[in-house]
Amino acid sequence: MRTIDWNDDSNSIVMIDQTLLPMEYKVIECKNLASLCEAIRSLRVRGAPALGAAGAYGIALAATLSSAKDMEALIRDLDVAAKTIKATRPTAVNLAWGVDRTISAISDAYDLDGIKDVVLAEAKNIADEDVETNKKLGKYGAKLLEDGDTVMTHCNAGKMACVDWGTALGVIRSAVEAGKDIKVISCETRPLNQGGRITTWELMQDNIDVTLISDSMSGHVMSKGMVDKVIVGADRITGDAVFNKIGTYTHSVLAREHEIPFFVAAPISTFDPNNWEDTVTIEERDADELRFFKDVQIAPADVKVYNPAFDATPMENVTAVITEKGVFYPPFLLDELLA
Amino acid sequence: MRTIDWNDDSNSIVMIDQTLLPMEYKVIECKNLASLCEAIRSLRVRGAPALGAAGAYGIALAATLSSAKDMEALIRDLDVAAKTIKATRPTAVNLAWGVDRTISAISDAYDLDGIKDVVLAEAKNIADEDVETNKKLGKYGAKLLEDGDTVMTHCNAGKMACVDWGTALGVIRSAVEAGKDIKVISCETRPLNQGGRITTWELMQDNIDVTLISDSMSGHVMSKGMVDKVIVGADRITGDAVFNKIGTYTHSVLAREHEIPFFVAAPISTFDPNNWEDTVTIEERDADELRFFKDVQIAPADVKVYNPAFDATPMENVTAVITEKGVFYPPFLLDELLA
Repeated sequence: MRTIDWNDDSNSIVMIDQTLLPMEYKVIECKNLASLCEAIRSLRVRGAPALGAAGAYGIALAATLSSAKDMEALIRDLDVAAKTIKATRPTAVNLAWGVDRTISAISDAYDLDGIKDVVLAEAKNIADEDVETNKKLGKYGAKLLEDGDTVMTHCNAGKMACVDWGTALGVIRSAVEAGKDIKVISCETRPLNQGGRITTWELMQDNIDVTLISDSMSGHVMSKGMVDKVIVGADRITGDAVFNKIGTYTHSVLAREHEIPFFVAAPISTFDPNNWEDTVTIEERDADELRFFKDVQIAPADVKVYNPAFDATPMENVTAVITEKGVFYPPFLLDELLA
Repeated sequence: MRTIDWNDDSNSIVMIDQTLLPMEYKVIECKNLASLCEAIRSLRVRGAPALGAAGAYGIALAATLSSAKDMEALIRDLDVAAKTIKATRPTAVNLAWGVDRTISAISDAYDLDGIKDVVLAEAKNIADEDVETNKKLGKYGAKLLEDGDTVMTHCNAGKMACVDWGTALGVIRSAVEAGKDIKVISCETRPLNQGGRITTWELMQDNIDVTLISDSMSGHVMSKGMVDKVIVGADRITGDAVFNKIGTYTHSVLAREHEIPFFVAAPISTFDPNNWEDTVTIEERDADELRFFKDVQIAPADVKVYNPAFDATPMENVTAVITEKGVFYPPFLLDELLA
């Protein structure tokens, strides 16, 4: 199944609970906004494109559940829902984008049921387009990989970060589909281990050769000639930098030091040309993520912790950005790219 | 108390059980060789200098317990003990060194009780010398730190890796003792989290300000100007490189990129001028270290893993090596330094 989807029978959102992977494969159903918000906040669904679909489906869910008797009241309900959903992960630009695009579709409707229909249709479009986008992006990116390459990746920019196929892992999937032999090195990605838990799991599901390392080993594996290319996803691409999972910047510096191409795979919707590295606030996550692993204590319970969720990789460290519109080599003008 | 010590009342070895830190502070007593070997094998005592003392005290313990009636029989018993102790961690150079130096002391004795006395005295000397070495090293290193500095460190090159005071953390302790305000950023140090578990704990015991980060954050904190200096320990310093806990090389590249001084604190006994980066085999540890945290599964149980214990930092990335004989700035000739 897709990472996140709409269930027409129960009018609810269904998703694979990513916090349980790889130990347990469990599909959960969000029947109200509270359970969706909990799922977003707890990273049961995560990854920029998947969050776009989550935000869109969230508005569709709110419309379905609303008891409003007129269009104005329904629109007010949806505006409240939009704010509630966006507040769960304020840095996730795709989440807000999915919400806003679905809200915008309201203008095509002219009665109460019409609104409910168009927001659901728009949410489904967003999910379908994401799969299509990733397949296009994957095809462009696959040309950059050579038969026999070992590709290092960080976090999970895979199927499980999207509705399906994946961005960084989508490029790898497309290269494998084109008959190339590709091996992957997956950094475990502390503190939430998306690389260790999810990237490894989904690649193993597809029989793609994957080796797990700790994040700190990236310099070592590069210096030993074990890495041909690095591909990561992106949460937000500003005019000057790529915001992605904490650790991405570290890998980008090491890739440049070892003259290894560093690719970012991300749909055009990730671009945010009106912001800059210093205008984006980086979300800080709970200190306990570094003090506990599930119920196991791994540090003093009262130790001070710094836990930023993202870092910024300056465009100088990026060899190319792979999008559904093609491959772009910095320096490029974001405005032209988005035109 | 010291990390490891001799109890004259009970004729036994006492140590802080490091596998329980930081959740529990427990002092264990090794009254026979089997319990000492178990403690070494299970990493209840760890760190190169601490293992040197553990090996030495192990020979003293074997001498105390021996029922031999003549010198020859006692020496046979000690030889068996020496082999048994060394076999617990065959790659730990200091463990073998502590054992051999204590055995060598036998030549100063001329009767049964004399042997028992000299081996215990030698073991105590080894422990005392380690503390003295670290205090000297700390004083030299402290001059490199300025009041107000934030120092990043990796793994645990602290009191708990030595008999007392520590190497990298010894430098920080000496600077604090000299009245300087020093803050520490401790990288958690995957996969065994010595930075998260032990470095944080021992600095908090001494009321030294410490903040825990994941290893992948080092680039980010450096780019944000949060790090003034990096200090790490060393397991082995060859003619061209510093071998230390995996991740050290990654931090060294990032420090150079951000023009942050990168210091290595290590006693002269760590120097190995007859070896080079490419003549040292890097120990690979169990794959399960990256698949499980204690009993919690954190990756697919059958995922391929690459788990090198150490990496090599080329001397070009090292600003200075801090030893008990002074501070040395590369390029230096190891032979002259060791003379």
